[in-house]
Amino acid sequence: MADITKRSEDHSRWYLDVIQAAELAENSPVRGSMVIRPTGFAIWESIQRILDDKFKELGHVNAYFPLLIPKSFLAKEAQHVEGFAKECAIVTHTRLKSTIKDGKASVEPDPDSKLEEELIIRPTSETIIWDQFSKWIMSYRDLPLLINQWANVMRWEMRTRLFLRTSEFLWQEGHTAHATAEEARDETLQMLEVYRWFAEEFLAMPVITGPKTPRERFAGAVETFSIEAMMQDNKALQAGTSHDLGQNFAKAFDVKFQTAEETQEYVWATSWGVSTRLIGALIMCHSDDKGLVLPPKVAQRKVVIVPIYRSDEEKELVLGKAKEIAEQLKPVAGFVHIDDRDKMRPGWKFGEWERKGIPIRLELGPRDVGNNETVMATRHDCNKTTVSLDGLAETVGETLERIQRELFETALKRREENTHILETWEEFTTLYKAEGGFSYCHHCGETECEESIQDETKVTIRNIPLHSEDEEGSCIRCGKPSKKRVLFAQAY
Amino acid sequence: MADITKRSEDHSRWYLDVIQAAELAENSPVRGSMVIRPTGFAIWESIQRILDDKFKELGHVNAYFPLLIPKSFLAKEAQHVEGFAKECAIVTHTRLKSTIKDGKASVEPDPDSKLEEELIIRPTSETIIWDQFSKWIMSYRDLPLLINQWANVMRWEMRTRLFLRTSEFLWQEGHTAHATAEEARDETLQMLEVYRWFAEEFLAMPVITGPKTPRERFAGAVETFSIEAMMQDNKALQAGTSHDLGQNFAKAFDVKFQTAEETQEYVWATSWGVSTRLIGALIMCHSDDKGLVLPPKVAQRKVVIVPIYRSDEEKELVLGKAKEIAEQLKPVAGFVHIDDRDKMRPGWKFGEWERKGIPIRLELGPRDVGNNETVMATRHDCNKTTVSLDGLAETVGETLERIQRELFETALKRREENTHILETWEEFTTLYKAEGGFSYCHHCGETECEESIQDETKVTIRNIPLHSEDEEGSCIRCGKPSKKRVLFAQAY
Repeated sequence: MADITKRSEDHSRWYLDVIQAAELAENSPVRGSMVIRPTGFAIWESIQRILDDKFKELGHVNAYFPLLIPKSFLAKEAQHVEGFAKECAIVTHTRLKSTIKDGKASVEPDPDSKLEEELIIRPTSETIIWDQFSKWIMSYRDLPLLINQWANVMRWEMRTRLFLRTSEFLWQEGHTAHATAEEARDETLQMLEVYRWFAEEFLAMPVITGPKTPRERFAGAVETFSIEAMMQDNKALQAGTSHDLGQNFAKAFDVKFQTAEETQEYVWATSWGVSTRLIGALIMCHSDDKGLVLPPKVAQRKVVIVPIYRSDEEKELVLGKAKEIAEQLKPVAGFVHIDDRDKMRPGWKFGEWERKGIPIRLELGPRDVGNNETVMATRHDCNKTTVSLDGLAETVGETLERIQRELFETALKRREENTHILETWEEFTTLYKAEGGFSYCHHCGETECEESIQDETKVTIRNIPLHSEDEEGSCIRCGKPSKKRVLFAQAY
Repeated sequence: MADITKRSEDHSRWYLDVIQAAELAENSPVRGSMVIRPTGFAIWESIQRILDDKFKELGHVNAYFPLLIPKSFLAKEAQHVEGFAKECAIVTHTRLKSTIKDGKASVEPDPDSKLEEELIIRPTSETIIWDQFSKWIMSYRDLPLLINQWANVMRWEMRTRLFLRTSEFLWQEGHTAHATAEEARDETLQMLEVYRWFAEEFLAMPVITGPKTPRERFAGAVETFSIEAMMQDNKALQAGTSHDLGQNFAKAFDVKFQTAEETQEYVWATSWGVSTRLIGALIMCHSDDKGLVLPPKVAQRKVVIVPIYRSDEEKELVLGKAKEIAEQLKPVAGFVHIDDRDKMRPGWKFGEWERKGIPIRLELGPRDVGNNETVMATRHDCNKTTVSLDGLAETVGETLERIQRELFETALKRREENTHILETWEEFTTLYKAEGGFSYCHHCGETECEESIQDETKVTIRNIPLHSEDEEGSCIRCGKPSKKRVLFAQAY
């Protein structure tokens, strides 16, 4: 096992090293597509389970729409096609044919199988879904329509990084249709709040919520809201978005409904999504130089027991007790893994579970069994304490809660320490030449000014925080009047 | 709501009508790709949950591999590429470009974005997975490797039918690697048994298990096993397959491991899968002329309460009681839906839940509340009985179990009544010119003979049942000696 680069040395290298050490994912032979390994996929399964239950509780239902989208659909919403045309995988043929080429046998696309209309692998599904909605929505009785889809999507990225930016990624995409603009806006904000709740309560990752500026809007949206988290290198990561689509897609796909008053009106829409990018955020928010650190609420395995023994007699004693403990812990920790592999030594196993971020490791030897105790190692702070086997379920349950809380508190404290209220352009450039971080500054709201800031400093407006109060001020860059502070940061 | 064609009139039409009436799925604008609507997708979610838990219980873990496969990978296993070359979606470009064509603006694939090597949308993932396995498997310590993936796959079908045969479909594909031929064979048979258990215990659909004949093997397999079910038109439907891949893929992708004795050996492999086709099987096994019939164990909503009232006072009384009942039924029926939509009349609601196959409907009016009773309608036999509200949870729990059992018994009885032991070619042709069904006949085992039977009668060997005893006989078609009866039927 190669060493993990220290965060302080090279944050990018550290990130990839953690992914490799914890066996979360790896690059595949298809440029930009990753393989999500079992340890990484288990995190995605936790994320799916929690969010899916929440979506359903709020009245959404799951469905599945086609992977391939006719080229002409994409073109129906002008901004939408502009946003995605430069990064899409295009299917043109449907058959391979054996041929002899330069004297060598090979398989090539059969020219006779060329499609009349090319198909695009979905970069997102608004177009194919709204085409279907046009068949499902007739009257106000059919509204609201609250659909979610768990799917793979494809955006042909030139510079990729595992989890953060890959050509193919997994996500959920909610697509809803409403009778009024107000309802659609309420839904957009409700789902933004779900994402905030999930990020903070489960990923233990504090986030700032708010609308993006016009230039950062989703292609086809009236307003895009995001959650923004701070990583350990002080950069921001956009971890989820919720879009108010207004009537743009309803107009592009001619989706009208009969109101209760028997008039015809275009439908109001939202869409919202989070992706496997969340796993990247999770890694960069909590992990350390020893490997992955997982918040208990998203760890499929919250506790691992490493039994320690030499003789067969000791083995029987220790494994017997380990099984008892695993059973006792089920109500507070779910399935508890007993790592009884005979081919590895305990020290090697400790290292593996540390790299893989299991929140609690219990070490259990024959002497521990005799003393009615076990050594409890908590991953997030690398502490070890000896605890009694009496009331162990309670101890473990409380410790899991404490870990979850401490991870959030640590991340919040880090964010607060690295958040600044700036007044002058000099302060701004000084900060972002040095350690960076979040800053709240006044901005005039003009796209050109926003772009010039990015060109000079690589800093962007992450969003206009919902919690930002009205306040007279002048733009940090150009001095024009401003009524609100916005959130600036360098971002992933 | 259009009427459902009767099964006796036109089985194919009936099948599509049920899918439409129950809002399970519909065709999409992309030829051969379907939209799975919420009611249909809920069935898939039940299937996923049950199987996924079982796979994990048996030590498998989930992972995710890329959607796109380099053309050269597919070509590495000779039979494999031959099996899939004629039905694959090929990605050739990665960018769209606005152009003027015939005086009209349009978007076309940008020639500058042509890929050096074309990519194939996975028809199945053996090749991309075995390429990855070659990096993960070094020694016997890395074995067995037990991976499963839930994914969408694409096989460009010319004649499609919702759920049964679509270009894109959803499935799970298990891929395992083992140190010995015996272990791989055990895994193949274990997963076949999981599929049998799932089909019979959950889908209430009896199946026959056994190996396919060589001509029906999966492209690249040493042996393919299937589960075969009988539909209501007496045709067979292959509902799941489990493949012993021998060392074929290990050799194609050069996956060797160091044995405990420090020799190098190729790895032994299996793969196994079931797909959204199971939903088609489910429909054709149990549904009737009124719509979908769902076995309780795969119904996400097992019970629906339809409250009946006229005045606000009655509404308050009835809805209050309905909520009480829903709460009481949770332990035996999960979430109980109360259909309190004000815009539809009770009779309309009864029809909707009948079409959608909810196993139990409770009708509750003010008089019922007064009498401490409710009308319980069971979907599978269209019976209505008045039952007491005292001990309702027990009544409903027992009824759900009874429905599940009766559906299986009815399907089994139907299969038995339509299964024949045949000795002569005349009997054979007579049966398959008339009502058809399953038949156990002797067969010589030669591919040519098998093909001639299919050409003449459209009847194929479904599999060689595991329960089929050794028995001397002569081939039903050519008279050559045979040692076993095989299962014949016309098939989907």
